[in-house]
Amino acid sequence: MANPVLPSSGVLSPLGLDAVRITPGFWGDRVALNREVTIAHCQEWMERTGWIGNFRGERPRRGREFSDSEIYKLLEAMAWADHPALPELAETVARAQEGDGYLNTRWSGSRYTDLEWGHELYCYGHLIQAGVARLRTHGEDPLTRTAVRAADHVCRRFMEGTQTDGHPVIEMALVELYRATGAERYLEMARRFVERRGLPALGEIHLGRAYFQDDVPVRQATAFRGHAVRALYLASGAVDVAVETGDEELLKAIEDQWERTVARRTHVTGGMGSRHADESFGDDYELPPDRAYSETCAGIASIMLSHRLLLATGDVRYADLAERTLHNVLATSPALDGRSFFYANPLAVRVPAPPPDGMVNHAAQGGLRSPWFDVSCCPSNIARTLASVAAYVATSDGDGVRIHQFTPGEISHGELRLRVETGYPWSGTVRVRVLDDGTGRISLRVPAWASSATLAHGGGTRPVGPGYAEAVGSWRAGDELVLELPMEARWTYPDRRIDAVRGCVAVERGPLVYCAESAGDEPPLAEVAVRPGSALAEHAEGEVVELETEAVLGAPAAGSWPYRSGPDGWDGDHGAEPGAALRLIPYHRWGNRGPATMRVWLPVAD
Amino acid sequence: MANPVLPSSGVLSPLGLDAVRITPGFWGDRVALNREVTIAHCQEWMERTGWIGNFRGERPRRGREFSDSEIYKLLEAMAWADHPALPELAETVARAQEGDGYLNTRWSGSRYTDLEWGHELYCYGHLIQAGVARLRTHGEDPLTRTAVRAADHVCRRFMEGTQTDGHPVIEMALVELYRATGAERYLEMARRFVERRGLPALGEIHLGRAYFQDDVPVRQATAFRGHAVRALYLASGAVDVAVETGDEELLKAIEDQWERTVARRTHVTGGMGSRHADESFGDDYELPPDRAYSETCAGIASIMLSHRLLLATGDVRYADLAERTLHNVLATSPALDGRSFFYANPLAVRVPAPPPDGMVNHAAQGGLRSPWFDVSCCPSNIARTLASVAAYVATSDGDGVRIHQFTPGEISHGELRLRVETGYPWSGTVRVRVLDDGTGRISLRVPAWASSATLAHGGGTRPVGPGYAEAVGSWRAGDELVLELPMEARWTYPDRRIDAVRGCVAVERGPLVYCAESAGDEPPLAEVAVRPGSALAEHAEGEVVELETEAVLGAPAAGSWPYRSGPDGWDGDHGAEPGAALRLIPYHRWGNRGPATMRVWLPVAD
Repeated sequence: MANPVLPSSGVLSPLGLDAVRITPGFWGDRVALNREVTIAHCQEWMERTGWIGNFRGERPRRGREFSDSEIYKLLEAMAWADHPALPELAETVARAQEGDGYLNTRWSGSRYTDLEWGHELYCYGHLIQAGVARLRTHGEDPLTRTAVRAADHVCRRFMEGTQTDGHPVIEMALVELYRATGAERYLEMARRFVERRGLPALGEIHLGRAYFQDDVPVRQATAFRGHAVRALYLASGAVDVAVETGDEELLKAIEDQWERTVARRTHVTGGMGSRHADESFGDDYELPPDRAYSETCAGIASIMLSHRLLLATGDVRYADLAERTLHNVLATSPALDGRSFFYANPLAVRVPAPPPDGMVNHAAQGGLRSPWFDVSCCPSNIARTLASVAAYVATSDGDGVRIHQFTPGEISHGELRLRVETGYPWSGTVRVRVLDDGTGRISLRVPAWASSATLAHGGGTRPVGPGYAEAVGSWRAGDELVLELPMEARWTYPDRRIDAVRGCVAVERGPLVYCAESAGDEPPLAEVAVRPGSALAEHAEGEVVELETEAVLGAPAAGSWPYRSGPDGWDGDHGAEPGAALRLIPYHRWGNRGPATMRVWLPVAD
Repeated sequence: MANPVLPSSGVLSPLGLDAVRITPGFWGDRVALNREVTIAHCQEWMERTGWIGNFRGERPRRGREFSDSEIYKLLEAMAWADHPALPELAETVARAQEGDGYLNTRWSGSRYTDLEWGHELYCYGHLIQAGVARLRTHGEDPLTRTAVRAADHVCRRFMEGTQTDGHPVIEMALVELYRATGAERYLEMARRFVERRGLPALGEIHLGRAYFQDDVPVRQATAFRGHAVRALYLASGAVDVAVETGDEELLKAIEDQWERTVARRTHVTGGMGSRHADESFGDDYELPPDRAYSETCAGIASIMLSHRLLLATGDVRYADLAERTLHNVLATSPALDGRSFFYANPLAVRVPAPPPDGMVNHAAQGGLRSPWFDVSCCPSNIARTLASVAAYVATSDGDGVRIHQFTPGEISHGELRLRVETGYPWSGTVRVRVLDDGTGRISLRVPAWASSATLAHGGGTRPVGPGYAEAVGSWRAGDELVLELPMEARWTYPDRRIDAVRGCVAVERGPLVYCAESAGDEPPLAEVAVRPGSALAEHAEGEVVELETEAVLGAPAAGSWPYRSGPDGWDGDHGAEPGAALRLIPYHRWGNRGPATMRVWLPVAD
């Protein structure tokens, strides 16, 4: 079956990507753009930067020590997308492999001399994921054989001993290769990598061991910490190991860490990571909007983790967080043309930045999206994720189909063949049409934010609360289920322990977080406040729903020192003008109109 | 005359350090501890880490590429303190100098191959400052000769061309050497270094040219930006060049940049720098308390700059900022025992951190002070600044004495010989006693925060507003002036554009910023709010004045997601207890009782 994650047990079972055909719509359009534009864009840049040339032996070698991994993520994207450029690129990679399976364009000749920062096992992890994708979509070929040889080399080299890699990902890759091949050594190697970490397994680094989760063993940690992508890839691998080995304690540990992280270390967009200096989570409730790191790859890693936990437990909260992160991180990073990307996804930008200067702007900070980066993990990660995004849409739960994410498409499982019609996330109506006669349970996720949803089928309509709304029956072709989700825009308030957004509110509508953007003649955002509870009027811009609310515009006090003996309110002292209109756009669309300032969290006018 | 900064013109003129004798008191105690403990502590660590051994040719060379500069800052401290360890250490340094004046333990053999990051001219800058200090306190010796040879080498190598160093400091060092020797080539070299920067003079770096102020020429910039220490050292050198060359445009440019930076990019402590990733200022109003970088060295650099602008212009605002930064950054970094230091000086710490693990904790982030760092610029910078802190206390203004900073001591200038008696900053009474008959103007700074000060002398008392309170006369031994500054604790509110502290207040008393610290059984600070306007009761702890106010303690709402449909107030919904007492201590004393949480900005209970 073609799917990135195929556990051998769990409450829910994945469907093949061919059993979930996404048609034009919010995700369908992005899948098509990815296949037609982004994959080729990535390959062009990997040629231009010499990262593919490294595999051809071109010298001097170019790119960072982990640049091989970008080619592997691109190969994975090509595999899921059945892209015609795959075979030639796979051959180029295969020819660079050494006789014993070792493969790295940077470290050949000084193998494994810097496990903390060398990223050799990290690169294998992505190679193996690409190989699994190819195996499941095509069957054996040079890419799958390269991946297997690399995995076997890893097992020979690392099965004994105490070592692991500074950057996790090999763990989940090896478990998936075990699932794809049945060879138990891969699972055992993955298990050992998971268990070694934190004993500790790595040397000291100046960022401290928590940076690469080597401070405490995985099953003893209480929250995700350190480098966000590393933490979430490791947790994903730990879930995979736990599921395949029946290690309920390990699974529970990750569930608990997920719960604490979501309650205390997650931005309202679903984004994770607050610190630029080490790309890390930061402390509980340290969630600055302006310096939110919220790396695109951390968002992807969070979706990967939540999906694994959803499969293992069937708990709707994992699908809820995946929805939030899909719509507000994954959909935000690429520009509308699929040719430039945010690396960091901050929730506020105070200064309109000039376009990125070549690849210098490491994280496209505060500015426009960048076509490529010197550390360019995000574009190819987006490419492979969009190419396989159908995996998150629906699963089976034994005798039925559960629909977790709403987007137009067709879903087949057993006797059930369903067509989903929806304008989601702009419209809250999700229509599921039965295409063939058949029996089975059909379940539709009701998101936690949907407090007054209804489900209509068989002539009746009933209220359905957050969770999964189920309908069981013998279905006839032409039968319909219609889920109605309430799409009124909502004012959202932060927990008061989040210092960085105290006195502010955000606006959400359906699964989308909204923001104010000032790109042209809109009011300067530093001088805008809102009154939560005010009307949020909807305006259709094509299919996109924008919002408008009444704002208070207050020119700030002039002053030579920004700390004073009295409160600096929005009460008109400084010429505040109530009644100005403030437009709010979906956060994932910001930054597509040129240099701009932006805010998700808006001060409350007091 | 012995003083680090001796401009040839300006509204105010420095006094010799021997003309300002600081006696026991707030600063006198710190000066003594520095001389008796900190200087030796630094030398011990520089031996232990091998950084002094590098000068003896010990191999492998140890420490970062700029470690030589630490030895030079220590030598400067020893020169001002007339420390007996200086001659031997100076000889060690002198012996490492090459025949043509080149001196660097890291780059010898590959000179000037990486001006962006190599720090060779930066190291010379500190060497020259040490040499000037020795020349002015002792006269010629091996240290001064080494410094002069290095400066001459720099002039020969860099006078022509377009190059400069990635880290400024050579500029102000060369101007001071010009002032000390009269050799105009040093001034010209400094002038060229200042003018070259921003043309640009350096290569591309991944952090962008603004990092080392090479984005625009010094006189065209509008605010300090990029790496805070670099920016403030460069500005100090630019003021020195402007003063010596009569370049009023350049002086005005730095004054304007200072003004904008103080109004928009300065923490309430006077600390500067908001970003950890590149130790930079950040954007206007980007002033997060928890991630305030506020590097100790940036505070010192800010004091150096403000002092230069004060000398040039006589404008009290520069002395006001210096007071704030002296009391809330310089006094904060060293522990009460003078043997450990904060590198970063955040305004909030949420999680009590374990003691730093060796030197791994680069910036003593969020934790206890660290005895040393892998990048250990701060301890020796503190040592040289405390050893010469008398320079900031008083100046002449032609025919009189101006007292800028209040601390017990004796000040002599012309016919005036004065004794200052005060318990400042705990007490607001500053008594200036005339020790000998004489004439001349005596001026005392009235800080901007002192809205109801009075000055008593000659039998009368009059109100004096912020600025300088002056008294002119023929003085008799025994005459007294008594300045009374209002020391009621004050609630301070932020400009509403500072997103990170919206809805919060701070407490100040005199020049001191206060904070809440939770080190033992005090209430957890995440659950504390205050009501500004409430009484702030004073409690004496020895000479230290602590404060107490009524707080609202509210256990936070439990929840799996920290964003909700209604406000999360302090109104008792979650079992808030009004009426609890909250102790506030001077910010500079926090972190001396073991691992603790801390907050300067306190949420307002609404």
